[in-house]
Amino acid sequence: MRMDELIEKKREGQALTESEIRFFIGGYTAGDIPDYQMAALLMAIYFQGMNRAETVNLTMAMAESGDMLDLSDICDYAVDKHSSGGVGDKTSLVVLPLVASFGVPIAKMSGRGLGATGGTLDKLESISGFNVNLSEAEFRRVAREAGIVIVGQSKSLAPADGKIYALRDVTGTVASRPLIASSIMSKKLAAGASGIVLDVKLGRGAFMKTLEEARALATAMVQIGVDAGRDMVALLSDVNQPLGVAVGNALEVAEAVRTLRGEGPPDFHQHCVEVAAHMLRLAGKGERWSELAGARAEADRVLKAGAAFEDLRRMVEGQGGDVSQIDDPRKLPQAKLRYNLHARASGYLAAILADQIAWATLTLGAGRRAKDDEIDHAVGIEVHCNVGDAVTAGDLLMTLHANDEASLQAALDELGAAVEYSPAPLEPLPLFHGVVDGREL
Amino acid sequence: MRMDELIEKKREGQALTESEIRFFIGGYTAGDIPDYQMAALLMAIYFQGMNRAETVNLTMAMAESGDMLDLSDICDYAVDKHSSGGVGDKTSLVVLPLVASFGVPIAKMSGRGLGATGGTLDKLESISGFNVNLSEAEFRRVAREAGIVIVGQSKSLAPADGKIYALRDVTGTVASRPLIASSIMSKKLAAGASGIVLDVKLGRGAFMKTLEEARALATAMVQIGVDAGRDMVALLSDVNQPLGVAVGNALEVAEAVRTLRGEGPPDFHQHCVEVAAHMLRLAGKGERWSELAGARAEADRVLKAGAAFEDLRRMVEGQGGDVSQIDDPRKLPQAKLRYNLHARASGYLAAILADQIAWATLTLGAGRRAKDDEIDHAVGIEVHCNVGDAVTAGDLLMTLHANDEASLQAALDELGAAVEYSPAPLEPLPLFHGVVDGREL
Repeated sequence: MRMDELIEKKREGQALTESEIRFFIGGYTAGDIPDYQMAALLMAIYFQGMNRAETVNLTMAMAESGDMLDLSDICDYAVDKHSSGGVGDKTSLVVLPLVASFGVPIAKMSGRGLGATGGTLDKLESISGFNVNLSEAEFRRVAREAGIVIVGQSKSLAPADGKIYALRDVTGTVASRPLIASSIMSKKLAAGASGIVLDVKLGRGAFMKTLEEARALATAMVQIGVDAGRDMVALLSDVNQPLGVAVGNALEVAEAVRTLRGEGPPDFHQHCVEVAAHMLRLAGKGERWSELAGARAEADRVLKAGAAFEDLRRMVEGQGGDVSQIDDPRKLPQAKLRYNLHARASGYLAAILADQIAWATLTLGAGRRAKDDEIDHAVGIEVHCNVGDAVTAGDLLMTLHANDEASLQAALDELGAAVEYSPAPLEPLPLFHGVVDGREL
Repeated sequence: MRMDELIEKKREGQALTESEIRFFIGGYTAGDIPDYQMAALLMAIYFQGMNRAETVNLTMAMAESGDMLDLSDICDYAVDKHSSGGVGDKTSLVVLPLVASFGVPIAKMSGRGLGATGGTLDKLESISGFNVNLSEAEFRRVAREAGIVIVGQSKSLAPADGKIYALRDVTGTVASRPLIASSIMSKKLAAGASGIVLDVKLGRGAFMKTLEEARALATAMVQIGVDAGRDMVALLSDVNQPLGVAVGNALEVAEAVRTLRGEGPPDFHQHCVEVAAHMLRLAGKGERWSELAGARAEADRVLKAGAAFEDLRRMVEGQGGDVSQIDDPRKLPQAKLRYNLHARASGYLAAILADQIAWATLTLGAGRRAKDDEIDHAVGIEVHCNVGDAVTAGDLLMTLHANDEASLQAALDELGAAVEYSPAPLEPLPLFHGVVDGREL
């Protein structure tokens, strides 16, 4: 088998066989196939796509390029979630303790990622002492003892994906659906879950701008999981406006704590209930939560009762974090400056542009522009309003948390046209645009 | 300027500016841009193409990536030719002495190339002692003294092209029209000619199979030359059947000698007259050969008279070759075995498949499958017939020249269906399918 022939085959729009895909993934991971041939193949895939079988084979080959985590000592049926990322998305911080509170063990590996704020790991690191770099033995111990653990993704998990992603990043081949889907799913499959809930974000604050794109990506990922023998469901959720109130690492941890105590913003509360319900349905297959409606009611009840806060607390304790900071979130890192932004008109809010809020949050220092940037956990923006709200000029819309005047001013400039007004009433934005259910694919 | 952004721009089908093209050619030649980014860009160009301005800018950037040959000490107006290569194409061996015999100095750099037989350099090396590796000083001296010299292409000419071509070869990005056209033309522009005749081959024995493809490539190359200020013409010539009789290095030298003595096969004689006439028209612009018809008549007269043989002889002598081998071509390398192939039916020859003859010639050892293969100068095939000829079963069609029984047998197997018969008379194949004239583009 020759790499140049595989490149030409894909370039001509032909499907690659399983053994051809295993050849180039194995060869590239081992360093036998050079970057330049992989780059040419990736660009050919960008233009010609991959069919379902190719995408599954690519995913499996990447998943099996390193360790495949076995969680059977922790639980009979491991359930995982993945969010494609959106502005204000602190869902994992609430949903994972919530699911764990039902006795479903959570042993999760998570990423950092680039973006307006950090990933789940960065948010957790707002808590002093919280350690996301556990050894595998510690990871398993905390999972068993606390019932919930979240760590950074091991480098030995899907190393082919890591190497290919770094190459895609510099060769203009990131934005390819089969490559995105296989990259995400290879890590999920290697991480040992039997059931996976995908939270695919769409809208101005997400990577996917349209429902069509998001549904296509969700379908590709669900198909991969189903073909790999996993129970799969994908939610298509809206982030045209930020999810919840808080955008920024410590601010989001505080909001997660409030939500786990039953005092979260209604939109974020409902979002968490929905994601948790799907995880519970998967985890309880054939048992008491086999019906989604039942799982949803249970999750809502527990969240409102504040019972799942204890599970977050156990995790923070298990991973060395300062529990007093979640007991009293005012002890989390606080920014020096606060600035309230008020409505400049009366009427109804027609848009709260999540992408502009993201840029402003990044400007404040809450996220990374490049891989090695330092994050400021304290800064961020609280968005107190939602699309459809009736406002009067002068009402409080947002609070900016900044650590210096210059970044505050720059963030304000970026927020210039982030809020749009309408004289006529408007429908609120939906939380979800649909579901892609693995049982139907 | 960032390479990843240029890749994405081309990937989206946008045209690259001159400064963007100079950025990536300069950066890649200098080693600042890695192979993997260039490979991704080449694949994006494969899919999205390049417009006329981009192709010209790419060509000029590659041409100027190394030395630009200045031939003004040799002649006022340098004329060059380039053939895209076809089975039995020994045109340069005849046309260059023929043009030189009119007092138009020829100082040419040529390639080797992969194929059924070697390139012009390999054919010339059939002559004992013939040295194609002259220093630049020797090159200029022979050009001035003999009026004609042919050497291997200097590595300092268009080094960007050399580096990019090697990358294209292993990344499935050879078959792209703007990349092919710019690769060929960058070397021609760097080699110092003011006027260039392109002999673009098409048909079963050529890289381009159809008139449409060949015309598109010819047009792209002529446009590049015109935009770079050169006088350009491209001939579209047929190689569905081999050109002339001989296919194989020493056999082709012998046929070139016969042709230069006025005794060549009619088709090859006429092909050489046509190419030479165009070169003479370019070289004599505004003077006595400004009309093509006049140049054609002159070239035909000189070739028939055998007067240009002296020019070949002067070049062979100037480059250290054994002149006695062209005075008496029987002294050129001779194969041990000869095998005559006869017509197996009566009727008219409907096809003499140049590609199958090429494979058989390669099997005999006349060409290279890989860059470092040794060539056997003695072996080859003489094809004594042409499409349209009336034959009777048993008539001599071909003579195979082999150096061992095994390769002879393998070549005969490959020739199995190379000749097709028709009961009804047929038109002979045209020599040319058209001309692309730079004055009209």
